[in-house]
Amino acid sequence: MEDQLADFRQLLGKVYDLRAAAQLLGWDQQTYMPPGGGPARAQQIATLEQLSHERFVSDEFGAALSAAQHAVADLDPDSDDACLVREVTRLHDRSVRVSSEWVGEFNHQTGLAFEAWVKAKPAADFNSFIPHLKQIVVLRRQYAEFFAPYEHVYDPLIAEFEPGIKTLEVKAIFDDLRPTQVALLREIVERGSDVNDDFLHIDYDDHQQRRFGEEVIRQIGYDFDRGRQDSAAHPFTTEFGINDVRITTRIKTDYMPTGLFSTMHEAGHALYAQGVKQSLDRTPLINGASLGFHESQSRMIENLVGRSLPFWRAYYPQLQQTFPSQLGSVKLQDFYRAINKVKPSLIRTEADEATYNLHVMLRFDLEISMMRGELEVADLPEAWSAKMQEYLGLDVPDHTRGVLQDVHWSGGSIGYFPTYALGNLIAAQLWETIQSAIPDLEQQIANKDFSTLLAWLRENVHQHGGKFKPSDLLQRITGQSLTAEPYTAYLRRKYAEIYQL
Amino acid sequence: MEDQLADFRQLLGKVYDLRAAAQLLGWDQQTYMPPGGGPARAQQIATLEQLSHERFVSDEFGAALSAAQHAVADLDPDSDDACLVREVTRLHDRSVRVSSEWVGEFNHQTGLAFEAWVKAKPAADFNSFIPHLKQIVVLRRQYAEFFAPYEHVYDPLIAEFEPGIKTLEVKAIFDDLRPTQVALLREIVERGSDVNDDFLHIDYDDHQQRRFGEEVIRQIGYDFDRGRQDSAAHPFTTEFGINDVRITTRIKTDYMPTGLFSTMHEAGHALYAQGVKQSLDRTPLINGASLGFHESQSRMIENLVGRSLPFWRAYYPQLQQTFPSQLGSVKLQDFYRAINKVKPSLIRTEADEATYNLHVMLRFDLEISMMRGELEVADLPEAWSAKMQEYLGLDVPDHTRGVLQDVHWSGGSIGYFPTYALGNLIAAQLWETIQSAIPDLEQQIANKDFSTLLAWLRENVHQHGGKFKPSDLLQRITGQSLTAEPYTAYLRRKYAEIYQL
Repeated sequence: MEDQLADFRQLLGKVYDLRAAAQLLGWDQQTYMPPGGGPARAQQIATLEQLSHERFVSDEFGAALSAAQHAVADLDPDSDDACLVREVTRLHDRSVRVSSEWVGEFNHQTGLAFEAWVKAKPAADFNSFIPHLKQIVVLRRQYAEFFAPYEHVYDPLIAEFEPGIKTLEVKAIFDDLRPTQVALLREIVERGSDVNDDFLHIDYDDHQQRRFGEEVIRQIGYDFDRGRQDSAAHPFTTEFGINDVRITTRIKTDYMPTGLFSTMHEAGHALYAQGVKQSLDRTPLINGASLGFHESQSRMIENLVGRSLPFWRAYYPQLQQTFPSQLGSVKLQDFYRAINKVKPSLIRTEADEATYNLHVMLRFDLEISMMRGELEVADLPEAWSAKMQEYLGLDVPDHTRGVLQDVHWSGGSIGYFPTYALGNLIAAQLWETIQSAIPDLEQQIANKDFSTLLAWLRENVHQHGGKFKPSDLLQRITGQSLTAEPYTAYLRRKYAEIYQL
Repeated sequence: MEDQLADFRQLLGKVYDLRAAAQLLGWDQQTYMPPGGGPARAQQIATLEQLSHERFVSDEFGAALSAAQHAVADLDPDSDDACLVREVTRLHDRSVRVSSEWVGEFNHQTGLAFEAWVKAKPAADFNSFIPHLKQIVVLRRQYAEFFAPYEHVYDPLIAEFEPGIKTLEVKAIFDDLRPTQVALLREIVERGSDVNDDFLHIDYDDHQQRRFGEEVIRQIGYDFDRGRQDSAAHPFTTEFGINDVRITTRIKTDYMPTGLFSTMHEAGHALYAQGVKQSLDRTPLINGASLGFHESQSRMIENLVGRSLPFWRAYYPQLQQTFPSQLGSVKLQDFYRAINKVKPSLIRTEADEATYNLHVMLRFDLEISMMRGELEVADLPEAWSAKMQEYLGLDVPDHTRGVLQDVHWSGGSIGYFPTYALGNLIAAQLWETIQSAIPDLEQQIANKDFSTLLAWLRENVHQHGGKFKPSDLLQRITGQSLTAEPYTAYLRRKYAEIYQL
């Protein structure tokens, strides 16, 4: 039995070595690669992904997986091995269902679509992107058919990113959440914008910003012996195993919060990955329970910690010392209000906490309509504009800041967006449980003491990696299934105070 | 026929994508990887190398190679395709001769040997390294047997690095060269060391050194759009294709020449790799004709260009401006003499031009004696000391600065060292041809004009990559086979002037 598991682990390890290598090639592509390296790099990554896929769906691996399934049959279902075999079985079932012809065609079409998008976005030229997006919708419908019968055509898509959740569940949660968020936003906007954040939009030294951010995340618990921070145009976290988890950031010298909160956001992801137990290394379980769960950890560090008043009670004096001419005369309360200023905007990635989910829900609605054939790709901009007006009260001036803004669709990712909003909800739900478990949490944070918080996260979330389905994990930890209430309560409380609602 | 070549190229391309990925993982390991990443990284590289090897020796690849051999049978033997198929055939024959059991055991034993060496070197503890080196000698003898019958047991080893050359040829050249170099060195030492280089051993700013070196190599022709320079403890050049060729350097703030000449040395390698014609990308031909030929390019840029008087006529004023307090009062001639100071030393990597080859010949002699069973591993230090006295007139105070100094043997590399000396010889031999072709070369260099030199190297050396055997390439270019005469003449001329011999 142990031999069978060892064989299985060995074959799986090689698949994951190939994926880790592909990840490193991707990291390098976005950090240090000279421009000339691009074409060869794309080919190298494609080769690694293809070989990793081939090995994963090979007869040899299938046989090893079957043997492993027998070997764990009598184990505690919560044991590492039982969970590993269960999760790999799920991934394997998904991989073998999808034909390799489809995978080839999908990679081909998304390659073309990405190239087209890169040109179309700055030119605000949606027409040239239409045929590509049409192809992608067709391919994604075909993809769903590999998983027929399904309750909802969007189910197999979301399952790629958030295992176990159903489209209708997400829809019910969003339908509940949206009116509350829209109403809150209206209230805030009607109060008028009396929050001044001009002092954030002045010159802040790149190097000093970077050092400050790195000191913060080191104190929270990011381990620089098992990771590093570099610069990237679009910040991300990537791991080549539990002991090499790297983050990237983007410092803006004319808007200080971008770099710091990007660093804290990615550090939240990285704490998750660095906290997975070592016995799960070299397996897919190091990727965590789901994208939504991962996002809960990044948003928790970025927002629930990083945009909170206790955190700034701890760090504001130091920030003032670092930037005396910019912040020396700005009071803590005014700084806190400035970094939490609410302003509906056209761009998702720049959205504040009060508006972010609305951007996500807009995309979720449109993706579903496209997948169900209720919305033609050509009519997408019109639908986008209507929702933008309905949810955020904004007119869309051009496609660059509208339907072409995100990279996701060009890469074939449909079903990904909802995980961003789920992350916010999970974070708030976990936070309520954490606050019960650590009654003086705010005081600890105000003392720059993150040890109890980190220990709790390690114990309850991080160590498990992807052992459990996200819904099961949430139930285990909070005793409840996913709900938007903690999040809406948190938003209400926070903005009621800042905007005196 | 075209289809067969296309299939062959496609399969070969995937093998080389895996190798390029392994190279990038290695580059990262030596530049940016956090300490925690080590163990997983070693495994990832091993997996990539194993898969690349498996694919290369697979029946599928063998069949594609056979088909390609037929397809090129009627082509011009100097055409890209004919050369590619010929060179891949050579590499393939070598790979299939060696049993996979041997490869597994070799990788296992060298892994252990490297770990042992890392500990033994600083402790000067040769005894703990003996069993490992014994194993490696045994394995290398077994390796030679895969290529039986051979003229000399060392032939199959050197063939891994310098195709086509025989041990006895190298020995004849070295036997010819050694007395001349030893005699020259004695003459220099007897003249007494009147060369002052104290001003090189003072503080030079790291950043300024780096910038100066990068400006120099940019002007020589290193293309930073297809490469970059980073720091590494042991500088190296690595390529992930013709359009991404990276160099590393090691700046010492207390000895300026180390960083600059390391940068120029690696840039010499990189110019070769960046200059290979694009049609050879994604094939083993991008690695050049041989290690010796590669070293000829690095030593040419480092020494024949970088340690020459015309070069410093061009760059010394700028260097003085960069480091006015260190060099402002040092005359050009004195600087030139200082960077060419001859001093027999114990460490190969720190050796000057007059002594470098002697370090190589010492190792060549000892490797051959061990391979032939004439020298027991346990007796190696004694033999080392005797040769060190004979060739360089030095006593060896400890194993750290003696038999344990190089990493090569711990990695199983026997037969590699001679390529360093061959590189020096080839460089000087090429240089004579270049001087005939470009009569005013020195004047051009003194004007910072490297365009004619680079164009000549591109046309005659770089573009061909590994299309031709090193001996054939040398013959093509110089009309002669390998000879030490140009090198000894160069050394004599140079040091006669510096030391007024």
